[in-house]
Amino acid sequence: MNLASCTTEQLKARLAELNDRHAAYEALGLSLNMARGKPGRLQLNLCNGMLDPALLGDFLASDGTETRNYGVLDGIPECKQLFAELMGVDPALVVIFGNSSLCIMYDLIAQYMQFGAGGTPWNQQGKLKFLCPVPGYDRHFAILEQFGFEMIPIPMDENGPDMDAVEAWAQDPSVKGLICVPMYSNPTGVTFSDDVVRRFAALRPAAKDFRVFWDNAYCVHHLTDTPDHLMNIFDAARAYGTEDHFIEVVSTSKISFPGAGVAAMAASPANIAAVKARMKVQIISHDKVNQLRHVRYFKNLAGILEHMEKHRALLVPSFNAVLDAFEENLTGIASWTKPNGGYFISLDVPEGCAKRTVALCKAAGVTLTGAGATYPHGKDPADRNIRIAPSFPQQDELCKAAEILCVCVEKAAIEKILSARSE
Amino acid sequence: MNLASCTTEQLKARLAELNDRHAAYEALGLSLNMARGKPGRLQLNLCNGMLDPALLGDFLASDGTETRNYGVLDGIPECKQLFAELMGVDPALVVIFGNSSLCIMYDLIAQYMQFGAGGTPWNQQGKLKFLCPVPGYDRHFAILEQFGFEMIPIPMDENGPDMDAVEAWAQDPSVKGLICVPMYSNPTGVTFSDDVVRRFAALRPAAKDFRVFWDNAYCVHHLTDTPDHLMNIFDAARAYGTEDHFIEVVSTSKISFPGAGVAAMAASPANIAAVKARMKVQIISHDKVNQLRHVRYFKNLAGILEHMEKHRALLVPSFNAVLDAFEENLTGIASWTKPNGGYFISLDVPEGCAKRTVALCKAAGVTLTGAGATYPHGKDPADRNIRIAPSFPQQDELCKAAEILCVCVEKAAIEKILSARSE
Repeated sequence: MNLASCTTEQLKARLAELNDRHAAYEALGLSLNMARGKPGRLQLNLCNGMLDPALLGDFLASDGTETRNYGVLDGIPECKQLFAELMGVDPALVVIFGNSSLCIMYDLIAQYMQFGAGGTPWNQQGKLKFLCPVPGYDRHFAILEQFGFEMIPIPMDENGPDMDAVEAWAQDPSVKGLICVPMYSNPTGVTFSDDVVRRFAALRPAAKDFRVFWDNAYCVHHLTDTPDHLMNIFDAARAYGTEDHFIEVVSTSKISFPGAGVAAMAASPANIAAVKARMKVQIISHDKVNQLRHVRYFKNLAGILEHMEKHRALLVPSFNAVLDAFEENLTGIASWTKPNGGYFISLDVPEGCAKRTVALCKAAGVTLTGAGATYPHGKDPADRNIRIAPSFPQQDELCKAAEILCVCVEKAAIEKILSARSE
Repeated sequence: MNLASCTTEQLKARLAELNDRHAAYEALGLSLNMARGKPGRLQLNLCNGMLDPALLGDFLASDGTETRNYGVLDGIPECKQLFAELMGVDPALVVIFGNSSLCIMYDLIAQYMQFGAGGTPWNQQGKLKFLCPVPGYDRHFAILEQFGFEMIPIPMDENGPDMDAVEAWAQDPSVKGLICVPMYSNPTGVTFSDDVVRRFAALRPAAKDFRVFWDNAYCVHHLTDTPDHLMNIFDAARAYGTEDHFIEVVSTSKISFPGAGVAAMAASPANIAAVKARMKVQIISHDKVNQLRHVRYFKNLAGILEHMEKHRALLVPSFNAVLDAFEENLTGIASWTKPNGGYFISLDVPEGCAKRTVALCKAAGVTLTGAGATYPHGKDPADRNIRIAPSFPQQDELCKAAEILCVCVEKAAIEKILSARSE
């Protein structure tokens, strides 16, 4: 259906239908949630075997470290090895943390503010800027906001961020870096092309303490038989001698358990040395028993990839339920992504309709990520983008939520057209 | 033996004996360690039952929270309740973190540097000072050193820090706080008296953003039937309206597992709100499965206290082995504490002999905490204090290490006297 070509009478009639349906949903008192990229319960169950204490044996790591006791700042060797395989780097360039990659990035930015990134502390350099590919991840923006950065939105297309814009902004010495999800990006599902990765590697920023946070949250989170491939940023950077610009983080939050996983970073020798110099004062060691548990269960990258197939089998029907509903109900009204991996569908409703859609959904018992959340300060200039997270609800609830969402999108779109025509 | 009253010939004869014994130890190539407060393997085994997945049941916390998934920033309710009992505070004033109370303190100081403690950020207030009861904990000093504080040593006596000195220094607005272990203090074993705790509560510091880090690491770590009692700092502070001055931290590092425990803080409503405002941007949640594991295993404070009796049964023979060796070999030569709890014996060797003793021990295969470690910047002005940690070695190794230590103390002491007499 092409709403713009409908007569006002046709639209009013359709709106009346949609209003009736929306009122009926409201009366149901539903509580459905497509707001956050949370795994569903069946996904959580996939990894329960990891909690078998028999796996832990005598609690000794491969180098004889007693994992239950103090010690080993940067992680047990076999856990560093596992994450090194996951990120395609030397294990010596990996540090294991607690359960949160977000916390790794937060703490690193706090460190750079206070102690600098090899130069003057960032908090002594006046007002600073960070580049933010949009639409992007709200929690990234929240960190930058808390530390007082001016956030510069960089448009994303199907290849990744607009690198012309990145290169131009990087000439500003107050631009200290960029934060992104390079594979199955949150929320667009885009994987940065080889050309984009190479242009990142080739960047010659004015700031000598420039840092790109490469949040590789979905590095093995494929949804198809023909998964995307992300060029290894450190391999690319080595050719240009720019390894110091990049901080990669990953976690098992959506591999094992979001509430009890393991997170890690990879970086250049200089950046690893700097983070260890901070950490040796901050903590004695992160949870090494959980590190051992993860390694004993997954064994290696092949073990993780095999496990991810089980997640995929559970996630694909959820993604398809939403995509099918969109195809059936929103063709010609909205546009959306069909990701090859990750956790989100990025829905673009007609301009000026995102907030209204989210509010209508809320009233009908469906919680979505807040409109605007995918932009810095929660402000989507076109009020158009909504991030859809299909993973958490059970299939029947998800179908109902998608159905309601479609009604709300169409209702908001028609209201907008009618309002414009009456002006 | 009183060395000072011995003739030079007597001392030389004794030194020759000690030199022979020391050389014999060197030849053994031993590797014994009394440096850190690490639980021994038998202690670690006490808690293995906590790893039984049957304890976790359906992974649901008391409020229905799925612990394996994202969510619940400040900890599951029953874990907050457990730590509230441990600290004697309202559960609403507890936040659960990862496995490290050191990390809680580090991150709070980082927060105060960057964002302030209710006022101007600390890092915009020029050179700042922190009060450090001595002898104290080297990792506390390391945090303050990394953030650039001037550390003011405050002498400890059997009642706690010299409160006249604390009150006087608190009149300096550049003094931002104090960091201490109020119960079974590291390394002296002193528990602050009620009078000292009341004087802390009554402090009216010049700095409005003054903070006392109350590192209650050994709150249930008794070694006798007549344990010390520490007055509740928040109860005391409430009477003076000074709750905002205090941050209490505890952990299960030496209750369950140092490498896989749970840590928590308690603070005033304003301080809890401020830390949550930071955390909600830093992390989604700490490891909630580990929180659930701890609560299901210990159940409540009574369960923890019962468990601590098992630790005590293993620790008392270790402490006694060292204390007996000191009594037998060092009476009249050195002085030491006989703690009612905690993890350390604080040994005072003759002035100017600590570094030499530690070096002699090292040569004989016994690693001790570095001389000076119990003072800011690792500088003990009298070169006298050595922290002894008896928990980690097995009993036979411990007896050997204590024997060697006694030889080294006496040897260093005699060398010192002979050197003075020859000048």
